[in-house]
Amino acid sequence: MSIQENFSEISTPNGTITFAIMQTNFWVGDIKGNVGKMKALALDAKARGADIVIFPELALIGYPPEDLLLRPTLAERVKIAMNELAKIDGIVTILGYPHVDNHGTFNSAAILQGGSQKGFYHKQCLPNYGVFDEKRYFKKGRNQVLFDYKGLTIGLLICEDIWHEAPIKALKDEGAEMVVVLNASPFEVGKQAERKALIARQSSTHKLPIIYVNTVGAQDDIVFDGGSIVSQADGEIAHEGARFLNQLIMATFDVSSGRFDTQAKPPLDLSEESQIYQALVVGLRDYVNRSGFKGVIVGLSGGIDSALTLAIAVDALGADKVYAVMMPYEYTSQMSLDDAAAQAARLNVSYTICPIHDAVAGLKSTLAPLFAGAAPDVTEENLQARARGVILMALSNKFGHMVISTGNKSENAVGYSTLYGDMVGGFDVLKDVYKTDVYRLADYRNRLEDNPVIPERVITRPPSAELRPDQKDQDSLPDYALLDAILKMYIDEDLGYKAICAAGFDPAVVERVLTMVDRAEHKRRQGAIGTKITEKSFGRERRYPLVNGWSVTGEF
Amino acid sequence: MSIQENFSEISTPNGTITFAIMQTNFWVGDIKGNVGKMKALALDAKARGADIVIFPELALIGYPPEDLLLRPTLAERVKIAMNELAKIDGIVTILGYPHVDNHGTFNSAAILQGGSQKGFYHKQCLPNYGVFDEKRYFKKGRNQVLFDYKGLTIGLLICEDIWHEAPIKALKDEGAEMVVVLNASPFEVGKQAERKALIARQSSTHKLPIIYVNTVGAQDDIVFDGGSIVSQADGEIAHEGARFLNQLIMATFDVSSGRFDTQAKPPLDLSEESQIYQALVVGLRDYVNRSGFKGVIVGLSGGIDSALTLAIAVDALGADKVYAVMMPYEYTSQMSLDDAAAQAARLNVSYTICPIHDAVAGLKSTLAPLFAGAAPDVTEENLQARARGVILMALSNKFGHMVISTGNKSENAVGYSTLYGDMVGGFDVLKDVYKTDVYRLADYRNRLEDNPVIPERVITRPPSAELRPDQKDQDSLPDYALLDAILKMYIDEDLGYKAICAAGFDPAVVERVLTMVDRAEHKRRQGAIGTKITEKSFGRERRYPLVNGWSVTGEF
Repeated sequence: MSIQENFSEISTPNGTITFAIMQTNFWVGDIKGNVGKMKALALDAKARGADIVIFPELALIGYPPEDLLLRPTLAERVKIAMNELAKIDGIVTILGYPHVDNHGTFNSAAILQGGSQKGFYHKQCLPNYGVFDEKRYFKKGRNQVLFDYKGLTIGLLICEDIWHEAPIKALKDEGAEMVVVLNASPFEVGKQAERKALIARQSSTHKLPIIYVNTVGAQDDIVFDGGSIVSQADGEIAHEGARFLNQLIMATFDVSSGRFDTQAKPPLDLSEESQIYQALVVGLRDYVNRSGFKGVIVGLSGGIDSALTLAIAVDALGADKVYAVMMPYEYTSQMSLDDAAAQAARLNVSYTICPIHDAVAGLKSTLAPLFAGAAPDVTEENLQARARGVILMALSNKFGHMVISTGNKSENAVGYSTLYGDMVGGFDVLKDVYKTDVYRLADYRNRLEDNPVIPERVITRPPSAELRPDQKDQDSLPDYALLDAILKMYIDEDLGYKAICAAGFDPAVVERVLTMVDRAEHKRRQGAIGTKITEKSFGRERRYPLVNGWSVTGEF
Repeated sequence: MSIQENFSEISTPNGTITFAIMQTNFWVGDIKGNVGKMKALALDAKARGADIVIFPELALIGYPPEDLLLRPTLAERVKIAMNELAKIDGIVTILGYPHVDNHGTFNSAAILQGGSQKGFYHKQCLPNYGVFDEKRYFKKGRNQVLFDYKGLTIGLLICEDIWHEAPIKALKDEGAEMVVVLNASPFEVGKQAERKALIARQSSTHKLPIIYVNTVGAQDDIVFDGGSIVSQADGEIAHEGARFLNQLIMATFDVSSGRFDTQAKPPLDLSEESQIYQALVVGLRDYVNRSGFKGVIVGLSGGIDSALTLAIAVDALGADKVYAVMMPYEYTSQMSLDDAAAQAARLNVSYTICPIHDAVAGLKSTLAPLFAGAAPDVTEENLQARARGVILMALSNKFGHMVISTGNKSENAVGYSTLYGDMVGGFDVLKDVYKTDVYRLADYRNRLEDNPVIPERVITRPPSAELRPDQKDQDSLPDYALLDAILKMYIDEDLGYKAICAAGFDPAVVERVLTMVDRAEHKRRQGAIGTKITEKSFGRERRYPLVNGWSVTGEF
């Protein structure tokens, strides 16, 4: 079934069609708020002379709505909302929404105009891998949908559809002269280059101009990075949206020449560090602001992870919403005290020193009768980390700020962290950032201003948890460059023991690292969420059984 | 494509076929161990005179293997394992395994005999709801598979297939005279009655005898409860396996009469309390034993949750592996001290009293300069809970026992718990048990022995967290009977605000409860796993966004 509606009653001068591409964030679950936002934006687009306004995938309910899609009131809520949206007058509106009918729930695009819904398209390719669970919620669409506007036949697709060959080919075969794709495509390092190559290839292969609108902003662990794309039928990019920013892109299509106008000033390509840094800022900003907390508390250690986390927090929320706490104990060096104070001063945030000697002494005193005769071990190190965790949570409870944790991906991978200690917090900013990338990001942030926000010594000193005298991370772990190289192969590239050894790494080190990763699953399961930046983040993207008998080196 | 292999070279006296139904547990990931177990069990079945031995769904890799199915070495490991299994001689072996070929990975059943794989079937209906993510991993099978043994045509199905009409109808249409179904069907209250009704209905509708073999034992939060079923072609149940126990069921089919022999003594129907209790015992037992911990620590409060948890831990692991710790503070009553001591004495477990006054004083002293002038509030209550959490974790670290937590489903639902405090632990035994059901289970356990394991007073006293003077749970929460009634409608039955109010509850209470549930998602996300017993457990079965704008009462 194709819907061939004629929208040509709206006249446009000079045989052109102007599209308002709304690269905007819609909050998951807030249907009423999203409707209000869409109505206001559509009126704005109309006032700017647009003929058609386009909102991203599932704009009505935000992405990903997860099990909110299973709520029994969904159908009724969507119906009320769509009736509201249909009142938008004087402009054709295309938006993503969950369509519920007797056949099930679909991930759909609606075409609204002149007070009613003129047609709808159901997404055909449902991603059910990585962070995506769309087959849990949606039935698969089976038909192409096209509509005519001013004599131009426009086909609709949604996100995953455009990554496959069949849907766009079917649209072309059925006479589409342009394709509009609604997206909620999560950020990953390198993803925008992939998207641009894809759109250029699909355009030129099928000789179709494409409008690709992406959402922007964060939901829990996922950041949408915008970067919407308008391509000519020969694959040339006519417009590209900014990354990580709400933006209205106006693109005018000349029906007779079959070409879009082109952007005066295309956005610069962002460096990898810049992309990651912005993703982390947006991820933290949207999570904290939507959580209802008034600000965040960061425990500073004098080390690089908390230093970078502090800078990101200030960039995300503003210095007045960030509270830094230094909690020294016996093994805290003067260098750490000095550097933590310097970071807080440089970023102009509230800074409190809270020595934990009494807390640790009290805990030790309570444990003394039970520990009589037992030699000190990692238990006593964890006590310090957990005392700090309790102090941070007490400050959070008393003053209403969210604790953010500072564990990086390397630590999370091998379990080099204390559960209920340094893992305490509502959001782990660097959760998906390897330690070697933490250094790159610190360098990047320091280069942005004449006066570096992270003291040079924090970057050059050997990393230490300072939980016993003269402790260094490298007493317990391989050198981070080596560790991260193995971790990236095991986690991000999903390679096995043999393949990693074959790449030239010491088999004993590989076995040790892989075993540590598998054994730390129980810690990760109770850790805070954090922004996904790699192609394989911990969390919903990597689902491992907690207790399992898989042998990392075994033949079978 | 149907595989019509003739296995009739194995002669069986008197025109009968004896099936060995292996209701057994296979550990997730431990392919080598599972192969060894299957070889030994197949030889045992052969020695007992079986013609065909049947292992459950995905027996080779255990269920659910989750992202282990995405490991790049899976195909190679399965190949080696299947070659090993094909060596089983003198008996036909049917087992579940992940089949990997150029078309993808399938959830499959293999038929092995005489040194080679004679055929395989790919599951057609892939569950992708509730706890299941099978479409993340498996391609869908598209064909029926039948094989001949001694002139009997046997069709294969896997788990979800039998809950639908098409697959069994297609088997019947293609000439099946019996159906063998391999399962990994998780326990839920009432599930076995549903299974028996289903199998009886499918048998009688299609005039087909059915062998339904289920796995048994726990994997993380899921318990498989056995209860394998053999039904005659008229729907009469000929054999039923025990619940929650490994069991070999021998069933002999008379080819000429078309009927199975019948079980001398069918298992008794278990009461709901008995089923739940056994599920909790098996869930904890398998998790702890596979985690590598030497035993468990339970913090006793004198209340009913920790009392019941202690009894379950002793039933699961034995008293010598259970360590009870009472951590009194200022607000702990003498009644609580007496009752905790009585519980530990009655169950004969190690019992330690560890007053936390010093720990709390130390934490308060550290916080004093920061809290100067601030009024006491819930922060100080959380401090006590967190001090206990730190002490339990220190004991765990020092002595190698897993902390198990005692939060029930009512508390987890509304967030009546302290993150990093009483929520500390590797496993939360009562996670999916509502408070009102905690009382039922305590009564049930007490009735099993003349000398009750839980003092009567623990059951009759008003519940209290004892974190401030004269505190009662009902100061902060509706009465548990009311609370649980609302929670069951909202969570287990997935009803919305209007529907719950329409059932006669006070709208203000409903709104308050639903709002508490939605706001506690961030706590649940960092909580320990625990055994699923209801149709909607927290965890992988209920996936909600952390920050979202869904209005519990809103029209849209």
